[in-house]
Amino acid sequence: MRTRITSADNKTVRFAKRLLTKKGRDLCGFYLIEGPKLLSEALDSDAEVLFAFFCEEGPGFPPRCAALARRTANARAAVLLTSERVFRGIADTKTPQGVLAAVKKPVCDTAGFFSRAGGNVLVLDRVQDPGNVGSLIRTADAAGLAGVMAVGGTGDPYASKAVRAAAGALFRIPLLFVRDAAAAVALLASAGKRMAVADARGGTSCYAADLARDVAFVIGNEGRGPARAFTDGASLVVRIPMPGGAESLNAAAAAAVLLFESVRQRAATD
Amino acid sequence: MRTRITSADNKTVRFAKRLLTKKGRDLCGFYLIEGPKLLSEALDSDAEVLFAFFCEEGPGFPPRCAALARRTANARAAVLLTSERVFRGIADTKTPQGVLAAVKKPVCDTAGFFSRAGGNVLVLDRVQDPGNVGSLIRTADAAGLAGVMAVGGTGDPYASKAVRAAAGALFRIPLLFVRDAAAAVALLASAGKRMAVADARGGTSCYAADLARDVAFVIGNEGRGPARAFTDGASLVVRIPMPGGAESLNAAAAAAVLLFESVRQRAATD
Repeated sequence: MRTRITSADNKTVRFAKRLLTKKGRDLCGFYLIEGPKLLSEALDSDAEVLFAFFCEEGPGFPPRCAALARRTANARAAVLLTSERVFRGIADTKTPQGVLAAVKKPVCDTAGFFSRAGGNVLVLDRVQDPGNVGSLIRTADAAGLAGVMAVGGTGDPYASKAVRAAAGALFRIPLLFVRDAAAAVALLASAGKRMAVADARGGTSCYAADLARDVAFVIGNEGRGPARAFTDGASLVVRIPMPGGAESLNAAAAAAVLLFESVRQRAATD
Repeated sequence: MRTRITSADNKTVRFAKRLLTKKGRDLCGFYLIEGPKLLSEALDSDAEVLFAFFCEEGPGFPPRCAALARRTANARAAVLLTSERVFRGIADTKTPQGVLAAVKKPVCDTAGFFSRAGGNVLVLDRVQDPGNVGSLIRTADAAGLAGVMAVGGTGDPYASKAVRAAAGALFRIPLLFVRDAAAAVALLASAGKRMAVADARGGTSCYAADLARDVAFVIGNEGRGPARAFTDGASLVVRIPMPGGAESLNAAAAAAVLLFESVRQRAATD
């Protein structure tokens, strides 16, 4: 099961390099994860790992990652040893952790996405920063949401920075990609979700709003806020009361406050 | 009041470049801010602006930033026009916004830091990521905290990434730098603050804990968590209940949840 790669021209290496771009990820249907912790979480989940590179000369292997390589092989994924030079050509981080794997992008349809009764979802409306996108997905997973909807124009959740910030949440929480705001609004309405649009400028205090069940939390673009289609169609525009001097929170921080206020309300009504 | 700079060897340019490193910022007592929005907020606050560069050839100036340049001059700060080449040599961002200014690092003493009766504070215990540090300071400002304490080993709040993520909060909320965890614990105790240490692994649910007043929220290092001195000395170890699959939240997201649960409790008891 183990192959040793020393040439950057190897075809698996070339395949992995294609996954560094959004176009390549979209065409191939796979994305890259880095580091032993993420690979271990991927193997623990339903995620489909295609192959994993282990850097022979890095700090991790062998013997630290020998057990992880065995688990990878047992999951029917190819285990590939590479030289440090080849590995650095694929790794996105400055200090690679010696492990890099290709994981299949899961396919989620609308019915599956909305299958959990009473479930809340998070809607990302053109959130740009990949770190924010990943952190939002991680927070949604931690808060037990049923899924995350990414509206056209949102940063790619499978970009390396987003994958790092999501910290394994991508292996667990369903993602649904929707073309534009109008399509998202229609889908949410037909699924019986109430849209709660976060807006720093006005609306109901999140502590006074009912956020327990069947809520779609809409987080808009970092600079421009949510699209008109969302604010016009919203059941609720929610505001986080800010006693201090700041006029707004970072998108990921705002979502954390709203999603966990919902967790609090659900627990209180259980 | 307006000087035109075309040489990178100009002494103000050289001074500004020193502020790109932590050592330079520590020695000089100033830090850099980028973009018209931050400069405008700095001028609106008590922050002391020493000088501002406006890039002549950039997208911003003239005429878009002419009013901002006048306001800068009225605040007795030097207004310096630079060529694009010189400007790019100082700017930290890939797409500079044509405005860059040096702001004095405010000095905060212990008495001033703890002067607000009943005030809550945020303690950063070796939080590494500059984006997290900035986002945490922004969230603390939004939540109306009395101040942010940075314990030795925490990423520099005046590094460019942290400054960007703080989005103006640095001009408003007091920062106190403390050598180590032991010193921080002693200071907090003598100021009558109850330490609430965030820990994903255990403790009291944040919704069951009293977080309204005189609380010092301790956020630990992203990987290793809070130092022993904090957990040993804590009045409260608080946990955010996570109904989903994730084992923890990003440090900035966790702080947002805790600080705004405190905002909710304060409002409920007012």
